[in-house]
Amino acid sequence: MARSVLTADQFSKEQLVHLLDLSSRVEKALGRRRMLPILNEYILATLFFEPSTRTRLSFESAMHRLGGRVITSVGMQFSSLSKGETLYDTLKMVESYADICVIRHPMEGASQIAAKNISIPVINGGDGASQHPTQGILDLYTIHKYKKLMTDKIVIAFVGDIKYGRTIHSLIQYMSHFTGEFIFISPEELRLPEKYRKYLDEKRIPYTETEDINYLKEADVGYITRVQEERFLDHKEYEKFKDFYVVNSEMLAKCRSDIIIMHPLPRLSEISTDIDDKPQAKFFDQARNGLYVRMSLLLDLLGVPLGELDK
Amino acid sequence: MARSVLTADQFSKEQLVHLLDLSSRVEKALGRRRMLPILNEYILATLFFEPSTRTRLSFESAMHRLGGRVITSVGMQFSSLSKGETLYDTLKMVESYADICVIRHPMEGASQIAAKNISIPVINGGDGASQHPTQGILDLYTIHKYKKLMTDKIVIAFVGDIKYGRTIHSLIQYMSHFTGEFIFISPEELRLPEKYRKYLDEKRIPYTETEDINYLKEADVGYITRVQEERFLDHKEYEKFKDFYVVNSEMLAKCRSDIIIMHPLPRLSEISTDIDDKPQAKFFDQARNGLYVRMSLLLDLLGVPLGELDK
Amino acid sequence: MARSVLTADQFSKEQLVHLLDLSSRVEKALGRRRMLPILNEYILATLFFEPSTRTRLSFESAMHRLGGRVITSVGMQFSSLSKGETLYDTLKMVESYADICVIRHPMEGASQIAAKNISIPVINGGDGASQHPTQGILDLYTIHKYKKLMTDKIVIAFVGDIKYGRTIHSLIQYMSHFTGEFIFISPEELRLPEKYRKYLDEKRIPYTETEDINYLKEADVGYITRVQEERFLDHKEYEKFKDFYVVNSEMLAKCRSDIIIMHPLPRLSEISTDIDDKPQAKFFDQARNGLYVRMSLLLDLLGVPLGELDK
Repeated sequence: MARSVLTADQFSKEQLVHLLDLSSRVEKALGRRRMLPILNEYILATLFFEPSTRTRLSFESAMHRLGGRVITSVGMQFSSLSKGETLYDTLKMVESYADICVIRHPMEGASQIAAKNISIPVINGGDGASQHPTQGILDLYTIHKYKKLMTDKIVIAFVGDIKYGRTIHSLIQYMSHFTGEFIFISPEELRLPEKYRKYLDEKRIPYTETEDINYLKEADVGYITRVQEERFLDHKEYEKFKDFYVVNSEMLAKCRSDIIIMHPLPRLSEISTDIDDKPQAKFFDQARNGLYVRMSLLLDLLGVPLGELDK
Repeated sequence: MARSVLTADQFSKEQLVHLLDLSSRVEKALGRRRMLPILNEYILATLFFEPSTRTRLSFESAMHRLGGRVITSVGMQFSSLSKGETLYDTLKMVESYADICVIRHPMEGASQIAAKNISIPVINGGDGASQHPTQGILDLYTIHKYKKLMTDKIVIAFVGDIKYGRTIHSLIQYMSHFTGEFIFISPEELRLPEKYRKYLDEKRIPYTETEDINYLKEADVGYITRVQEERFLDHKEYEKFKDFYVVNSEMLAKCRSDIIIMHPLPRLSEISTDIDDKPQAKFFDQARNGLYVRMSLLLDLLGVPLGELDK
Repeated sequence: MARSVLTADQFSKEQLVHLLDLSSRVEKALGRRRMLPILNEYILATLFFEPSTRTRLSFESAMHRLGGRVITSVGMQFSSLSKGETLYDTLKMVESYADICVIRHPMEGASQIAAKNISIPVINGGDGASQHPTQGILDLYTIHKYKKLMTDKIVIAFVGDIKYGRTIHSLIQYMSHFTGEFIFISPEELRLPEKYRKYLDEKRIPYTETEDINYLKEADVGYITRVQEERFLDHKEYEKFKDFYVVNSEMLAKCRSDIIIMHPLPRLSEISTDIDDKPQAKFFDQARNGLYVRMSLLLDLLGVPLGELDK
């Protein structure tokens, strides 16, 4: 079993700090040069059993910027799976064709199946409602970039769908290694699952739960999420919540002047476009940060020499 | 806002002449070498919200021949759009992942939205019935290659669907910078729109409108088009027109011996396969010319040094 | 017409031996280096009119390992074909965009149409129930790798769907150049077609037909195949045969200790996963061997110098 990125809880603080440092080095190097030819001899396979254009293009761009090659397959129904092949057999083939792979699959645990059975590193690019660990690392890197993550206490207000938002759950886990305080702003029906409340209690991480958006005023970071229609069986329930909170310029004016507003994207109406050009709006920067973080992950998992980064 | 290729009317004569010259240089260089390693450090994103295999592969091949990298996404329903994301947000991501992009979209103006909001050059790869400006430039280059476009008057007979044929409308605009005379051969119902007749009148460009295919005999260039089924609400209307004109070897024998027959492809029955091997048939050459023109556009928009072209 | 790979019967013994040797050289070279930069200046087009992720990724990985570039199009309905364009016109475009192409098409003979009309080498990546010649060569290479194909008589037991299994039919043709003996183990309804029985009789190649799986005990090679649901009009017929034979560890214990078990994949239940880790199981190795064989074919068809292989 090769080193793989499967879940948020697999990372130690040391590993996270290492990845944040590496991402900074990559970002600086890309400021000087368009390409960093380190993975010229490597092939990345992106296997997307469900579409996620943003995540896929982010990884593919990361691989190209490192000089590598990409093979890709997109579509719910991989041809062989539709003939009844097991996921295991389908994934097994990729070790002959690539040196590292990203797997996106609607089924929880699909990446684990791959990692256990194939000899190349596997990156979980999202498996159902469960995990999307690389998104959480790029969120952490974004906080690190604009706030003093290593030394200060960071107050993060999560707004929206705290129940189903898997990127929130990942980020909570990553933040548990640093000094943070959380404010969860959501309708009662979409509050943080019991499991994560227990997690925070055990780690003695302070948090507040509220329905009141005005708590956003106390935050260093506002992490806004979309209420995901696909999680509701009852469309009426969804309609009730989808515009529950809207962060606009009026709201922003009440917040700390140095707050940063993040969002894992895609967004709907929960962030008004009238704040897109404000300096506090970092949700498009997050996408760019994803590039640096994913480049770092590719480098780290393949264990290549990094001298080229400092040229 | 970066330099972009959005509409046919954005080009001055000087810019067109420059592109034709550059395309000739590229063509000559590719006669000596398989690859021209100029864009080694650049990534092209091809975002095809509707499929167009020919246009997409043409751009991707162009980028590869210049040593560059390609990331691609094809499909009406981009994953995030299907979750309700705006086109603006979807397009915004691409500036983090690529250095230049081609966008094909069923909606008029989609490329303009992109170009206004993102910091990398945008090429309009076709937006609805509206514009497909790079096709027009390769048509112009094809005429330039086989006829004396810079000095002589070129008589072009357009045959078929003059009403909806967007490549015809683009080529009219490009040709307005040179000395041309147009013959529009179509059924009454598919004649040139008022808008373009006024355009020609204002520019004092001579033209003739007729239903009679025999006017093709007077042309230096025969530009044949497919009657596009998808433009007709009434299938019977379409059936009436689809085989209205057929250019075959018999017809060709009546034309000037040095006429060139062009077609933007795909063709149906409007050009008989019995002329495919004739020297006048240039419609497959057009596809090859598209490669040179698209390589030139990529080079020009990215503003890179071109010394490599003359090696 | 360029040199192309269209059918199993086009190969002479000399050509096959040459390809097997070349594949061995490629395999050895890849043991020393990750990439063999020989086709840096070439573009491969993979045109998959029906999906076959395994075959496509295998060719694309092969091209990348040789330093080449790839453009790809996947989907039953190529955009221009859906507008009524002929297959000929669609395929014609590819010669402008690539230096070599792989075509997968549900229609028998599609690759031949391409090869007759375009000026670059064409590789048949599978056309309907008819041919899949590169799969047969990788099967042959697998036998060559583990058995003394050049000198000894190889007893191959084919198990399962001998009637529709196109990879079996190809391998029979390839094996006819070497010394082999065949055992066909299938239900009566899925026995070897008359055409191939005649073929074997003419070539005086000994074979046995039986329903009894115990004949597997006499084989050097067990070539197991999936009963393909898509070949049956009557679902009940399919149900009757799909689990007719199952090769598991119990069965394997009765076979020669040095038997190798092959399968063209995807497999369903005809090979039990309890033998996946046995040294006799070579079906995942086959996929890897496909990489070497496809790299050899690309090299051979493009006729490039091979000095790089021995560095």
